[in-house]
Amino acid sequence: MFSVLKGLRIVEGTAFVAAPLCGMTLAQLGADVIRFDPIRGGIDARRWPITNEGRSLYWPGLNKGKRSLAVDTSRPEGQEIVTSLIASPGEEAGIFVTNFPATKGWLSYDVLKTRREDLIMVNLLGNPDGTSALDYTVNCAVGFPMVTGAQSRGGEAKPVNHVLPAWDAIAGVSLALSVLAAERYRRLSGRGQLVKVSLADIAFAMVGHLGYIQEAQLNSEEREAHGNYLFGAYGCDFETKDRRRVYIVAITARMWRELGKATGLAETFAGIAAELGLDLGDEGDRFKASDAISLPLALWCAERTLAQIKQTFEGTGVCWGPYQSFKQMLREDPRCSTANPLFSELEQPGVGRYLVPGSPLSFGALTREPPVRAPMLGEHTDEILGRDLGMSDGEIGRLRDAGIVAGPVDVVQ
Amino acid sequence: MFSVLKGLRIVEGTAFVAAPLCGMTLAQLGADVIRFDPIRGGIDARRWPITNEGRSLYWPGLNKGKRSLAVDTSRPEGQEIVTSLIASPGEEAGIFVTNFPATKGWLSYDVLKTRREDLIMVNLLGNPDGTSALDYTVNCAVGFPMVTGAQSRGGEAKPVNHVLPAWDAIAGVSLALSVLAAERYRRLSGRGQLVKVSLADIAFAMVGHLGYIQEAQLNSEEREAHGNYLFGAYGCDFETKDRRRVYIVAITARMWRELGKATGLAETFAGIAAELGLDLGDEGDRFKASDAISLPLALWCAERTLAQIKQTFEGTGVCWGPYQSFKQMLREDPRCSTANPLFSELEQPGVGRYLVPGSPLSFGALTREPPVRAPMLGEHTDEILGRDLGMSDGEIGRLRDAGIVAGPVDVVQ
Repeated sequence: MFSVLKGLRIVEGTAFVAAPLCGMTLAQLGADVIRFDPIRGGIDARRWPITNEGRSLYWPGLNKGKRSLAVDTSRPEGQEIVTSLIASPGEEAGIFVTNFPATKGWLSYDVLKTRREDLIMVNLLGNPDGTSALDYTVNCAVGFPMVTGAQSRGGEAKPVNHVLPAWDAIAGVSLALSVLAAERYRRLSGRGQLVKVSLADIAFAMVGHLGYIQEAQLNSEEREAHGNYLFGAYGCDFETKDRRRVYIVAITARMWRELGKATGLAETFAGIAAELGLDLGDEGDRFKASDAISLPLALWCAERTLAQIKQTFEGTGVCWGPYQSFKQMLREDPRCSTANPLFSELEQPGVGRYLVPGSPLSFGALTREPPVRAPMLGEHTDEILGRDLGMSDGEIGRLRDAGIVAGPVDVVQ
Repeated sequence: MFSVLKGLRIVEGTAFVAAPLCGMTLAQLGADVIRFDPIRGGIDARRWPITNEGRSLYWPGLNKGKRSLAVDTSRPEGQEIVTSLIASPGEEAGIFVTNFPATKGWLSYDVLKTRREDLIMVNLLGNPDGTSALDYTVNCAVGFPMVTGAQSRGGEAKPVNHVLPAWDAIAGVSLALSVLAAERYRRLSGRGQLVKVSLADIAFAMVGHLGYIQEAQLNSEEREAHGNYLFGAYGCDFETKDRRRVYIVAITARMWRELGKATGLAETFAGIAAELGLDLGDEGDRFKASDAISLPLALWCAERTLAQIKQTFEGTGVCWGPYQSFKQMLREDPRCSTANPLFSELEQPGVGRYLVPGSPLSFGALTREPPVRAPMLGEHTDEILGRDLGMSDGEIGRLRDAGIVAGPVDVVQ
């Protein structure tokens, strides 16, 4: 992590991927992020993947570096604790991030604003109209599963969902961006605001930014599935002699020249170009010739092991990469190890010692510090009530006895 | 767009997806973003998808709301123009975003810094060591293609690439976040800095944040492909009577109850739970029972049209969505139309009139303004040289005559 946002204070009431990712992203940039949860854990506290002992591997990943408050917000005293935290004074406080349907009631902007006029509240919704939607139900609506997977060639294809929760990931970082934009605005104007973002809009906007909506509107033909081919340029996957797979790309003219040179196939490619009447220095023509280009490349790859291919391409301008399963990535890729400053090994209580990434954003004016593990549920309850809200030990004891606050709690399946 | 970042001034030297998306994201939040390109267009100026007339639909999507300067930076005078722009004085200027390999030479941080000590430069790399990598060659390395597509059930699966350039999209928003974080830091400390981000780190970090690295490290079994099933909870796709498809999800206990209620299958589900000895109120148990749950749901969907399913689920707590191709999305989904304030119809010169998304981040203190179309290449050359750099008409004319600047240019395939 980098302390580039040191001092900034965010309270989050969140669950699942996008909204917790927002807080975690800001925490890894040095912000003080307090997540509050029910005293038995939030709706996502036990989410898969889990360890053999039944502890979530998912939750600690998305809540690194946060402080945790376990509080029963079904009771007025619990609500008051959270409200006081959200509305805490100070130029760098007064920021609340949530994906709860907080349009009315004690967590709504209108109510919270009565406690701090310049509050910044960022609310993630599912759909723009406030109805629920998840990554999966948004993704199916935005076209990509219809063009993912085996080539359709005009036939009807069964949709293929991505496994990466891409819209959640994009939304999480976008929420963090909106926090900083609103905080900058408040710093300059004195005005807080409610920022609303819907997961569906995140997806529809990106589909439009990437040109897919315009293509659907202006071009008569529907985009088809092209398997692992790269649309509009050249890219394809190949099996190696040792039954691994690689992906080879040539989106620029230079990458294309380098590929011909490194594989010794430049003349073969020239022959293909002549035969098809295409200029393979042009990316669109390379796309049209994908099948023809892939034939000799497939033979070339099948005669070489992954290690040999790596050695051949190293130091050249060929753009390629090996396919790796999650375990292969961990075993073989130095970028996914402590050899990469991005990663540290951390001990997560109850879960184990493992490789943890910090922020991928590297700020040169600051020193990279190792990522901070996720809190136990309610690990900071006492500290938050005492240090942040100024409660006495007696008061905290009373709240604990009344079951309004708790922690630390070991959440097991 | 929203003018939440009004006043902020960014110069970008970029190409392809991630880095232009950063500038576009900031432009749609009101920042003044100047993109400079070679006078015949950058390496991505003609990128597919293209219109029937050969104009890129891709480029205008990722460069909306920017100002464009066409300049020959292979010549010292061109370099001096860009350097002057990057190093322009003012608290809100002096920010440079690039994905060029700018580690040495005139565009490097060390050289630019001599012209403005508190410069902020954000440099996107492919790999952490500076070697090139693209979305496709990063994606194959981070595990997801191995678990995307048809269920592997222990067998060897052919990898399936996503079509959404997800890592580029995440990187683009992350770059924008890093700009605001660094600008906040400079505002408070007076210090600029070089921010380095690699596309590979963006991907490896996200894979780790989402728990996949930890799962690979701590659990003995490799994650398998589960087709369109949602890992760790319940989600599946179904065909409807009218041969459309829907995705139905139950990640929370409430969604699960609502699904049983809305479909009338609650008793069937209870029977499955009893037979398998599972508690289907638990998300992990629902995942284990995915096949059994899907059978009656498949029959239920096959007996109903998409419209009937929509009607049945409307107003309930069932979380679902229709699969839509890009054209179906445009034709059928009101969220992807001007009924959604996210979208406006814009005329892009030479390309046509089409639906354009603004920022999905909605700032309550500001009024949403329609998105601004992308510039023609070099559309703002004269304005930038004159108004921003204070050059005389004579000087600009001389630079034009010498072929050092140009525009506006209509870029056609």
